[in-house]
Amino acid sequence: MQKLINDPQHLVAEMLDGILLAHPDQLRSLGDVHSIVRADAPVPGKVGIVTGGGSGHLPLFLGYVGDGLLDGVAVGDVFASPTSEQILEVTREVDSGAGVLYLYGNYGGDLMNFDLGGELAELEGHVVKTVVGRDDVASAPKGEEEYRRGIAGLFLLYKVAGAKAATGANLDEVVATTERAAAALRSYGVGLSPMILPAVGRPTFEMPAGQMEIGMGIHGEQGIGREALGTADDVADTLLDGILADIDIRQGSRVAVLVNGLGATPAEELYVLYRRVHRSLAARDITIHRRWVGEYVTSLEMAGASLSILVLDDELTQLVDAPVRTPFFEQS
Amino acid sequence: MQKLINDPQHLVAEMLDGILLAHPDQLRSLGDVHSIVRADAPVPGKVGIVTGGGSGHLPLFLGYVGDGLLDGVAVGDVFASPTSEQILEVTREVDSGAGVLYLYGNYGGDLMNFDLGGELAELEGHVVKTVVGRDDVASAPKGEEEYRRGIAGLFLLYKVAGAKAATGANLDEVVATTERAAAALRSYGVGLSPMILPAVGRPTFEMPAGQMEIGMGIHGEQGIGREALGTADDVADTLLDGILADIDIRQGSRVAVLVNGLGATPAEELYVLYRRVHRSLAARDITIHRRWVGEYVTSLEMAGASLSILVLDDELTQLVDAPVRTPFFEQS
Repeated sequence: MQKLINDPQHLVAEMLDGILLAHPDQLRSLGDVHSIVRADAPVPGKVGIVTGGGSGHLPLFLGYVGDGLLDGVAVGDVFASPTSEQILEVTREVDSGAGVLYLYGNYGGDLMNFDLGGELAELEGHVVKTVVGRDDVASAPKGEEEYRRGIAGLFLLYKVAGAKAATGANLDEVVATTERAAAALRSYGVGLSPMILPAVGRPTFEMPAGQMEIGMGIHGEQGIGREALGTADDVADTLLDGILADIDIRQGSRVAVLVNGLGATPAEELYVLYRRVHRSLAARDITIHRRWVGEYVTSLEMAGASLSILVLDDELTQLVDAPVRTPFFEQS
Repeated sequence: MQKLINDPQHLVAEMLDGILLAHPDQLRSLGDVHSIVRADAPVPGKVGIVTGGGSGHLPLFLGYVGDGLLDGVAVGDVFASPTSEQILEVTREVDSGAGVLYLYGNYGGDLMNFDLGGELAELEGHVVKTVVGRDDVASAPKGEEEYRRGIAGLFLLYKVAGAKAATGANLDEVVATTERAAAALRSYGVGLSPMILPAVGRPTFEMPAGQMEIGMGIHGEQGIGREALGTADDVADTLLDGILADIDIRQGSRVAVLVNGLGATPAEELYVLYRRVHRSLAARDITIHRRWVGEYVTSLEMAGASLSILVLDDELTQLVDAPVRTPFFEQS
């Protein structure tokens, strides 16, 4: 197992220790080192944004805690949900009195634990609302969106929710805007190689050379199927066509685009994908108002990439442009 | 070959096209798409900082063009030097009249072409000086520093030179400060898996499971030797000890640290390395004033990491803290 780790059982705790040592001005842990909030939480008068999920996806989740994005994170073990106790602890710490938005991806364990954590928090007087990311078009067909997984598009929901909360909007307003963004967001990805779970020590699935999995999830979940690995332009077309078939984007629209690398795919390749997406959208008279190209939501050392598209209205345009300052990501 | 590319012969041109489409407000190409400068070049009164080298190392080089870092880049093919004509073309475009610093890594082809490009530029009346990065302690023994390769520490030299030039310092001052930083900088890395050159289609070397190459260069160059892959803490100790044996760092010193991922190594692992380095330096009464942990200088999809340490004085401290705004990196 070609990994720079110590005992796999301590990987997450050691990683968190390293992140806290590196970013003490921005992050602090609560009683449990797996429960982490922005150093200045709660921010007076601001709705708190809380997320969480399994480890192995950095910068998601912890790298996005800070100005303009998230207030707190409940960190699980590799690809495992955090506990409801962690979620409660983080909620207490980030609630300024303006209420808290839970914003996370659609996975069974996360749903269960965030719902339970939220119920416990409400018993203590916190007002909590939830928006769940379901951006992966490959994970369930149109009409069954409630079964879709949340993948890289979560970053765009954080961006919108974090910027909206930073304006001083109230909880209902933050929820409404984030839900509008979630409805206007789609992602679609492709996996080219497996990841290796540190505690297991071998690849989580087999991927023959020259093949790819269309629609693979960020934990190696099966997608729509295996195909021969195409050219970058072919893959970009497949991802873009899949998204455009699923969402209404009119000519003249503005969109935000994320071309996300899953881990081992070089940035050089992501820009070749971006190039095709940019030119294909331009040919359809769709303008990319803002784009991010890089590793925003990873899956350990998996090779592959995903495309996310958020259709913008005037308010969402302002929100995606708003400044951000977090340990892993700054935007001015 | 599990890569998202089209024709390997067009990879670099297509990648550059993608980068230019993504960042038109920050970058523009000259006659040759492989010669790229900041969109607002030349910056009046400012010394221009020019670099270049082979592709396959993003964010190095092109991702660092912008406020507080570089003014122009001559981009070569994958792992290949740019031409002297490109270097001349970039020099012309970024020279505001304040002169130009060539700042790049110590590789034969780059030296030859930058020297020739600089001679041609001087014939046209440009004043050009050169500082070469030689931070890799594994590539030649102490006392033979002039033979050392430039690796991830180049990012720190860009940071210092770019910040110094942004203060309005003249060319001699920028050179002197950058040379002082180069003398106070060391890097040391480890490779865990090979990269695959797109035009070749197979791994550039063999790396048996459970082994690592200590001191491997960013093009897969041989280092000090193969060893059994140790724990993250063992590797961190090896890298740190190698650097501390090579440079004078007194108790009470302040340093800047870069824990750099080469491509496939997850950020989670880089933070486990950082943790050990942080605690080991603290035990020696050495303070990490600023740190960067992530992929700053890559080697396609190679797994592995490097550690770079820059010993700070008062001026270097200010310079590493200065703000940056480039396509791949922002620091506020």
